[in-house]
Amino acid sequence: MTPAPRLTALHIAVVGGGGTVTGAHAALAEKAGRAVADAGAVLVCGGLGGVMEAACRGARSGGGLTVGILAGRDRSEANPYVTVAIPTGLGEARNALVVRAADAVVAVAGEYGTLSEIALALQAGIPVVGLDTWELRRGGRSDDGVVRATDPAQAVALAVDLARAARREPSPS
Amino acid sequence: MTPAPRLTALHIAVVGGGGTVTGAHAALAEKAGRAVADAGAVLVCGGLGGVMEAACRGARSGGGLTVGILAGRDRSEANPYVTVAIPTGLGEARNALVVRAADAVVAVAGEYGTLSEIALALQAGIPVVGLDTWELRRGGRSDDGVVRATDPAQAVALAVDLARAARREPSPS
Amino acid sequence: MTPAPRLTALHIAVVGGGGTVTGAHAALAEKAGRAVADAGAVLVCGGLGGVMEAACRGARSGGGLTVGILAGRDRSEANPYVTVAIPTGLGEARNALVVRAADAVVAVAGEYGTLSEIALALQAGIPVVGLDTWELRRGGRSDDGVVRATDPAQAVALAVDLARAARREPSPS
Amino acid sequence: MTPAPRLTALHIAVVGGGGTVTGAHAALAEKAGRAVADAGAVLVCGGLGGVMEAACRGARSGGGLTVGILAGRDRSEANPYVTVAIPTGLGEARNALVVRAADAVVAVAGEYGTLSEIALALQAGIPVVGLDTWELRRGGRSDDGVVRATDPAQAVALAVDLARAARREPSPS
Repeated sequence: MTPAPRLTALHIAVVGGGGTVTGAHAALAEKAGRAVADAGAVLVCGGLGGVMEAACRGARSGGGLTVGILAGRDRSEANPYVTVAIPTGLGEARNALVVRAADAVVAVAGEYGTLSEIALALQAGIPVVGLDTWELRRGGRSDDGVVRATDPAQAVALAVDLARAARREPSPS
Repeated sequence: MTPAPRLTALHIAVVGGGGTVTGAHAALAEKAGRAVADAGAVLVCGGLGGVMEAACRGARSGGGLTVGILAGRDRSEANPYVTVAIPTGLGEARNALVVRAADAVVAVAGEYGTLSEIALALQAGIPVVGLDTWELRRGGRSDDGVVRATDPAQAVALAVDLARAARREPSPS
Repeated sequence: MTPAPRLTALHIAVVGGGGTVTGAHAALAEKAGRAVADAGAVLVCGGLGGVMEAACRGARSGGGLTVGILAGRDRSEANPYVTVAIPTGLGEARNALVVRAADAVVAVAGEYGTLSEIALALQAGIPVVGLDTWELRRGGRSDDGVVRATDPAQAVALAVDLARAARREPSPS
Repeated sequence: MTPAPRLTALHIAVVGGGGTVTGAHAALAEKAGRAVADAGAVLVCGGLGGVMEAACRGARSGGGLTVGILAGRDRSEANPYVTVAIPTGLGEARNALVVRAADAVVAVAGEYGTLSEIALALQAGIPVVGLDTWELRRGGRSDDGVVRATDPAQAVALAVDLARAARREPSPS
């Protein structure tokens, strides 16, 4: 009977579209998920299909633990690679919970839901690494809040580094 | 003792930064708030300072009703032009509630919180009109989910038209 | 253009069953709602039928302002005596928001949802006055967290007094 | 790379006070947690101390998986026997999420937060088994919504049976 080792593990969210996803984006997500597991981190996501399912499949292939925080009330909505499914019934308000449950976020492509998760993470001071995802501009200039990566292993390595650095610093109020 | 007339009124959210805001953005927000009141609509916002306060001031100057859905638990966080303050204690998860309480959203400039509200509205199929706010691109192309306006009266007129059209159509599932 | 007077108004929630309600309970709720308005307080409720509708009807008959925090996403679920309807889409998780939006709670009869609102209020240190509502026992003894009243005017007077006292004291952490 | 077996596992919540708890109640909770693990079910709880920690310790001693849905934003609030900690930042609004994440609830003693979880579960049609917990009366009669047990192993066996039966039936609307 030993205390759980997982609590000190990093939690990395992989966010992206839940519907039909290109083969290229699914491959990015699956490799990212695998890299999360290989880093000894817990994978957090919205628990549905598309990018989320690919990321979970990748993490499970590496023996990782996957958490799906569902928008609906029915655990069976979760993709089959989710280890722990949390039905919330909150609709898209659950996007904020996916982000809060993570120490860093990797965004792969994505639709408006993904954009909201990127924005909610940045608002909360949680680092975001992007793989072929939304570009943001305001006042005619690029916003550099999202750290860009081109390779999923590099993206996860960056996310892990940023998460560790964020843990050492006080979080923004 | 007559039934409330307000329930059938349109509800328009004005979203934007809560911190220091330029005079130009405050003027846009105040005029937008006034236009919401002049259209007979209820103004919904996050209830804090900056763009939210300017919009509420504008709406009140036109005799309008203003609703502030607060992130914190303390009603006194609301700006003094809020008629009805709803403390939620949900932190940035309340951004989803600001959007859900509105039939259409007008975004004025804004930070990451505003970006999340834009994204949450678009995810939920709620029309968004932008005034000097975030520009979104993905896959190298502009996303046209946000209807752009340059004048606050025009922005609110567009929001009202889009809200009425959305009411007539079934909302996306 | 003057600041809103309402922000400093007390907010009193009247909670109770939303389905079929006895005539006696509806009468209690309507009188309680009227007393809330007569005290110059804003009425907060879940916005639906039954006790909520009766309370809103009473408050409106006294010229009061009524706020309905809805479980669903559709403003049209609100009863016709709601002035400001806030659709949340949170399901019964919105019960916590009804309570947080109030300085004190008056519970009239009620089902399990009402019981959860009583409990959430007591957990948050918000005073609760009961009119023919749930009795609570644990360890073989009555719990006296709910202040009992038999008359709706007395119940609201107690709620107003307790709310004023709670404002003067620091809230429990 | 096989699909996760856990998704089809039952999820049983053990709820109860997070503060100082009597030795007798801690023993009930620990045995209940162990019985949850022995039944092959996932333990869900609020992740904090007291009854929650005792239940997690029991489940872990049986090799079980424990999920803590935290009220705060900081994963480190979780007790050391939580396998997967979900910080929500929702305050007591998270009580609704603890309940929704479970197929059945076992309540051990408890304070007002526990009472709210009992009520939210009953409102949602989720079975509740009680061990020395709140007694509920209304209209002068005992409410029999909570199934009473005296032994933790019996309580969990009842919860498992009720959860299985609830899965077979359509949930209440």
